[in-house]
Amino acid sequence: MSTGFFGDIKPVAYEGPDSDNPLAFRHYNPDEMVLGKRLEDHLRFAVCYWHNFVWPGNDPFGGQTFERPWFGETMEKAKLKADVAFEMFKILGVPFFTFHDHDVRPEGASYAESVARLDEMADYIARKMEDGGPKLLWGTANLFSNRRYMAGAATNPDPDVFAYAAATVKACMDVTKRLDGQNYVLWGGREGYETLLNTDMGRELDQLGRFLCMVVDYKHKIGFKGTILVEPKPQEPTKHQYDYDVATVYGFLKRYGLEGEVKMNIEQGHAILAGHSFEHELALAATLGILGSIDMNRNDYQSGWDTDQFPNNVPEVALAYYHVLQAGGFTTGGTNFDAKLRRQSLDPEDLIAAHVGGMDVCARGLKAAARMIEDKALSAPLEARYAGWKDAEAQAMLRGERTLEEIAARVAREGIDPQPRSGQQEKLENVVNRYV
Amino acid sequence: MSTGFFGDIKPVAYEGPDSDNPLAFRHYNPDEMVLGKRLEDHLRFAVCYWHNFVWPGNDPFGGQTFERPWFGETMEKAKLKADVAFEMFKILGVPFFTFHDHDVRPEGASYAESVARLDEMADYIARKMEDGGPKLLWGTANLFSNRRYMAGAATNPDPDVFAYAAATVKACMDVTKRLDGQNYVLWGGREGYETLLNTDMGRELDQLGRFLCMVVDYKHKIGFKGTILVEPKPQEPTKHQYDYDVATVYGFLKRYGLEGEVKMNIEQGHAILAGHSFEHELALAATLGILGSIDMNRNDYQSGWDTDQFPNNVPEVALAYYHVLQAGGFTTGGTNFDAKLRRQSLDPEDLIAAHVGGMDVCARGLKAAARMIEDKALSAPLEARYAGWKDAEAQAMLRGERTLEEIAARVAREGIDPQPRSGQQEKLENVVNRYV
Amino acid sequence: MSTGFFGDIKPVAYEGPDSDNPLAFRHYNPDEMVLGKRLEDHLRFAVCYWHNFVWPGNDPFGGQTFERPWFGETMEKAKLKADVAFEMFKILGVPFFTFHDHDVRPEGASYAESVARLDEMADYIARKMEDGGPKLLWGTANLFSNRRYMAGAATNPDPDVFAYAAATVKACMDVTKRLDGQNYVLWGGREGYETLLNTDMGRELDQLGRFLCMVVDYKHKIGFKGTILVEPKPQEPTKHQYDYDVATVYGFLKRYGLEGEVKMNIEQGHAILAGHSFEHELALAATLGILGSIDMNRNDYQSGWDTDQFPNNVPEVALAYYHVLQAGGFTTGGTNFDAKLRRQSLDPEDLIAAHVGGMDVCARGLKAAARMIEDKALSAPLEARYAGWKDAEAQAMLRGERTLEEIAARVAREGIDPQPRSGQQEKLENVVNRYV
Amino acid sequence: MSTGFFGDIKPVAYEGPDSDNPLAFRHYNPDEMVLGKRLEDHLRFAVCYWHNFVWPGNDPFGGQTFERPWFGETMEKAKLKADVAFEMFKILGVPFFTFHDHDVRPEGASYAESVARLDEMADYIARKMEDGGPKLLWGTANLFSNRRYMAGAATNPDPDVFAYAAATVKACMDVTKRLDGQNYVLWGGREGYETLLNTDMGRELDQLGRFLCMVVDYKHKIGFKGTILVEPKPQEPTKHQYDYDVATVYGFLKRYGLEGEVKMNIEQGHAILAGHSFEHELALAATLGILGSIDMNRNDYQSGWDTDQFPNNVPEVALAYYHVLQAGGFTTGGTNFDAKLRRQSLDPEDLIAAHVGGMDVCARGLKAAARMIEDKALSAPLEARYAGWKDAEAQAMLRGERTLEEIAARVAREGIDPQPRSGQQEKLENVVNRYV
Repeated sequence: MSTGFFGDIKPVAYEGPDSDNPLAFRHYNPDEMVLGKRLEDHLRFAVCYWHNFVWPGNDPFGGQTFERPWFGETMEKAKLKADVAFEMFKILGVPFFTFHDHDVRPEGASYAESVARLDEMADYIARKMEDGGPKLLWGTANLFSNRRYMAGAATNPDPDVFAYAAATVKACMDVTKRLDGQNYVLWGGREGYETLLNTDMGRELDQLGRFLCMVVDYKHKIGFKGTILVEPKPQEPTKHQYDYDVATVYGFLKRYGLEGEVKMNIEQGHAILAGHSFEHELALAATLGILGSIDMNRNDYQSGWDTDQFPNNVPEVALAYYHVLQAGGFTTGGTNFDAKLRRQSLDPEDLIAAHVGGMDVCARGLKAAARMIEDKALSAPLEARYAGWKDAEAQAMLRGERTLEEIAARVAREGIDPQPRSGQQEKLENVVNRYV
Repeated sequence: MSTGFFGDIKPVAYEGPDSDNPLAFRHYNPDEMVLGKRLEDHLRFAVCYWHNFVWPGNDPFGGQTFERPWFGETMEKAKLKADVAFEMFKILGVPFFTFHDHDVRPEGASYAESVARLDEMADYIARKMEDGGPKLLWGTANLFSNRRYMAGAATNPDPDVFAYAAATVKACMDVTKRLDGQNYVLWGGREGYETLLNTDMGRELDQLGRFLCMVVDYKHKIGFKGTILVEPKPQEPTKHQYDYDVATVYGFLKRYGLEGEVKMNIEQGHAILAGHSFEHELALAATLGILGSIDMNRNDYQSGWDTDQFPNNVPEVALAYYHVLQAGGFTTGGTNFDAKLRRQSLDPEDLIAAHVGGMDVCARGLKAAARMIEDKALSAPLEARYAGWKDAEAQAMLRGERTLEEIAARVAREGIDPQPRSGQQEKLENVVNRYV
Repeated sequence: MSTGFFGDIKPVAYEGPDSDNPLAFRHYNPDEMVLGKRLEDHLRFAVCYWHNFVWPGNDPFGGQTFERPWFGETMEKAKLKADVAFEMFKILGVPFFTFHDHDVRPEGASYAESVARLDEMADYIARKMEDGGPKLLWGTANLFSNRRYMAGAATNPDPDVFAYAAATVKACMDVTKRLDGQNYVLWGGREGYETLLNTDMGRELDQLGRFLCMVVDYKHKIGFKGTILVEPKPQEPTKHQYDYDVATVYGFLKRYGLEGEVKMNIEQGHAILAGHSFEHELALAATLGILGSIDMNRNDYQSGWDTDQFPNNVPEVALAYYHVLQAGGFTTGGTNFDAKLRRQSLDPEDLIAAHVGGMDVCARGLKAAARMIEDKALSAPLEARYAGWKDAEAQAMLRGERTLEEIAARVAREGIDPQPRSGQQEKLENVVNRYV
Repeated sequence: MSTGFFGDIKPVAYEGPDSDNPLAFRHYNPDEMVLGKRLEDHLRFAVCYWHNFVWPGNDPFGGQTFERPWFGETMEKAKLKADVAFEMFKILGVPFFTFHDHDVRPEGASYAESVARLDEMADYIARKMEDGGPKLLWGTANLFSNRRYMAGAATNPDPDVFAYAAATVKACMDVTKRLDGQNYVLWGGREGYETLLNTDMGRELDQLGRFLCMVVDYKHKIGFKGTILVEPKPQEPTKHQYDYDVATVYGFLKRYGLEGEVKMNIEQGHAILAGHSFEHELALAATLGILGSIDMNRNDYQSGWDTDQFPNNVPEVALAYYHVLQAGGFTTGGTNFDAKLRRQSLDPEDLIAAHVGGMDVCARGLKAAARMIEDKALSAPLEARYAGWKDAEAQAMLRGERTLEEIAARVAREGIDPQPRSGQQEKLENVVNRYV
């Protein structure tokens, strides 16, 4: 029985590019074959719980704007929230969803009560999943909202907080496994510092390394087959976040011997806030062998905080999916909309329209990327640009078979005087514009 | 015989805090004992060649403003430049200097000629060093100004450029060793990309890894006792620089097995442009065991490019030296002024005054930091904040002797409910203000 | 009778620079004479209500951290809050305080009830003020927190919101006058737009102009003798705020004929977020004749949102007060601490210590600025730099007595070829460092 | 006779969206009718001299990369440069070009010689214009490159520099009139300050005000019919530029009574660097009645300096032209490509391809904007959003016929309690995505 929240909004259908129905897909046809695979299986869309059903619309200068019947800290409200959530998943026809423990259950008066409530809600959700609902792309624990975590979860100066966080993750991993989650995500919202004056970075990094090792060990212990993902983010909420960007997390994983066990969940907005393009973070993770999943959204380039807007710029999204496809596409990962309505978008229909627009933008982007790949539009010129490295002497240098002295002698002897060649950036940008 | 460039400016003397002589030290007394060591031996000041003697005062919208008698691309001018440089080093009484190959010799028509000129100038400089001049803190090769490097040096798509760069570094390492340099620095000015559309990041990183391995091998081969330093920098001149920040370079070193061989030369301005505080980069490098040397300057926080101003904010500089001292102080490293006059500061006296001011600011900062250390002003509260980790169970968690399950069981059993404690940031900031 | 909130903390006393009492002033001696005036009368410190007594410690990723006995939406709690506030004002010995309507009274069920509650609290506060409490530096209305203002107050597409906001300001101005406020402030928290797609900027600016005209009219109507102040701020909370910075607001005032009626309340953090230094905004406002008051705080230069930290960098604060003093000092304005504790600073003592540190930093800064003025340390070189403009022909150009043609003819005739002179920036920076 | 620089590149033709010819237009068909006007007459494209023919490819860390046969400071080279420039204008088929005095003639040894050279080159260029070349969109004087301007042109502390600058502008205005320029532009590259320590902002603003008044007077004197345009820019090259953004310049114009005489030349990159979107600056200028012309380019959002890239993001460009069209389109203004090749784009063909791509992006953008206007896709919902203001009482408030008291009385009396309505931002973003 419907909650009625979405009124008479019907499941969103694909109507093609000429449709002007604001609640129809114009580009996302799940069954369309792209590079030999269904579009749905490429994009693996997930809708998140937190922005859609938990966030009240507040910002640093204003309070709640959304008035939702399920707001409130009771199990009854939690179930109503789940009912509405699964109604929305169904309207959108997405194959996945994502959640934090904190999103689906009210906090209990004790750790044990919180876990019990989580278990009860997991049962409730499991029944909805069985009843034709989407699968779980990933679960995660909220280790940042509660005041106990204000000075860190794994990196807290108080070992009891570390323990509480560890216990909480254990419970969330259990639930994620039970719901057959494809991945388990850690985002270190409070793993960082506000001021070095009261922080011992060396200690805290070691705490964080230990924490992550325990998570990996537990994954193997319980036979969880999903991927452990870390989500990089710079600066916010703390002055410095330890998981700043992909390169930083990679160094961290290497330091603690985890680079074979953990992959990245990369968010567009977090990439931007770290001073990188989204495609940079994706390409780097692919290069380092740690590309896992993406949090799709959009950050205002001119706002220095996490704006989590819905994606709407096709040319940018196309370049992101280009790197995902070049890396072989998603395996356990997918496209999670970590995006929220603007706080003035009050209506239930806004929730649907925002996702419809975002899904269409992603579909257009991925299809453009696929065509570039089919045409070798970018890869052929790339191959040509580096062709000189196929040369035997070049290969010898690269394999470590030449020393500085040998190379210097050859440069002097042969009078090597390399002449630069055009990088053709504008031409390549024009090429991309033929596809988007 | 003097070149006369500095007129009748006398060697700068320490006159104490009450002096109003603009060309006297008010805080930098080289022989003052701080934490059991002479101030000069703590700070290990170096003056750089490039900003002072090479840069013509241009900016993106304007040409040369400085008119220096040594400007010009002849060996005669190069020697005049060296004469003036060593006059300035003497006036300032600094114990070290730094240079790129490109700073001290005009580019030759071929690699061989460039090396021959470098060797000739090295001889010329060596005589000046023997004649009471400062020592060489570090040498380095300019692998970014010439158009041949426009698409990278080690990371160029053309292996001939890689070879040319390798040969150039070989020559510079030779000269650095000959001049008894304390370190050899690599700054990857062109090691990055302008656009991913024409870039294969995986290839380029492997090229860069190979290059650095060859440098380390050559160091050992020739018995160079100094430290190999990499200088991180984000964004400028390319859209993305591979050596973005300390964390990024650390991951890179780990990937290519170089973390025991290479340390960091950390610049204030580069830290800022990467979104970090200077003290963050220093503390992180210390934590990771790769703190080498510093490039002291100041970046305008509101200008998104390298402004390379002289340091002038004592409270900020004090925090930087606090982390240097906490890490044990400099060994082969030192304080290199990678700072330039504003392009309107035309007079020879400006060159002297700028360094005098910068040296005084550093001296004030380091002395304040030393007093904080002596008083345990910050370290005592820090120790107290993490005291809970001395507990046996906490230690067991940290040593990896507890699993998530065991911890979860304990949290549930003992009803652990950690209560947050004040982080006291403002009080600690007030403490620092007592010292600066 | 004391609420007991601050335990046994005594009124803060001046103990001089050698004191290591964390709750004593080391630099702020209210009675010290500076440039012929008491330090207290120069600085005119005010403590704000909102950050200290209203903000729960939340941030975009976390909830309440502070647990205060007065949190809650009843009149009883509001009175307890006022009791504690005035206890803190007394401990700090500040001459002024500031508040929004929303800070001192719970929102009523209707406009009329909200006004009645405000009036009741105004009576309550008035008695505390008479009883030796501080004066009111300024009052203001909160036109941004409530969801009714989500799309603007004066600039709302709904004229009923405009009316509600106007009515609210009327009530706050009445109370400000009753409490003998020295100024009335308007900060346009929601006067801006999230997206131009749904915004008619021309309409909204006209609405805002009309609103401000009505405020000025009402001031005269009721005989309020204080100054009407607008507080510029860029970007946050909306994508674009109409009162971006001093220059923008000046243009706005000119457009609506209000430049003689309204002055600026300038905040350090807002200046920074607009890409300006604090001293720029102060100097510009002074130049334009609209410098009114300041909101003293500190924004992290590397965080793109309002961090509202307590000031702690004396060299920077000294330059700010230099421009205030050069402009003649405050008349109705003062130094309001629009600064908040870090959310981890949980203890009552943190509230006191933060203000003590901030007041000391301001006192050090202002005294350094005063000494620079007495010594003409900056003004004498400035005068010399522009001395050429005293020339008769230069004056004629400036007065508009020369045309382009006449000037061109003179340049050609006299072969004018101006030679640049050193701007001496580093020397001047060194001069400042002698004073701070 | 052709210089041969562009080899066998033919004039670029429109071949339609399916063409894969990299040197054909796919979207820019000059004769296509859009909103009742030829596309060429809407866009009014201009190619600039400086980036294409003067800039050597240097950046702050590297020297010249372009090797052009016309580089050199002789009149012969200047004429060769003009020959090539007009060949490129012809290949591209643009209706306009733009230049600085400094772009077209080598600097003379005196003011008189510089003017004589400018006059000679103006004759040379005039003949090319008569010979089927494009018209002049605007001329301007370079008052920033020469060291004489390092401390400002109009705002220099030395009145002789002011005079020299004034004389130079006079000569450039003469030439612009002679060549029938549609506008005359002033960009205050050095009108700002590096440090307030040596700057008297009040004096300098008055100097600048006087300078601009003289320019306006001279325009009328000589009967120049074009528009005087000021180009806003923040931060670069100086710490603070007086012409920061549209709002700042508007206030400046109002202060000196010039708002009826001067309009804006708005650049995308400058808007971005000021913290605004391009469309914000355009919409604001339109609202204030000072929208003149645009400098089309693209700034990397993550690089804090002027990157001047060719536009390539159609959705963004469409929103810019939407505001141009809403304001009635260009009159004397146009679309000037103030964009430069990346320094690695060495080939003549890159120059052509970059402009072709840029022109196509603009054409797509403008056509999408025009369709949105025809469909009232954005304007109809906008009208509906503000419909409440048509109400009589609302109009009375807006016209100034109601006081705060009257409004407050009505709010209380009628129990006005406005309820927020959805701003529908995501839906509107989806609407735009139907058109781009």
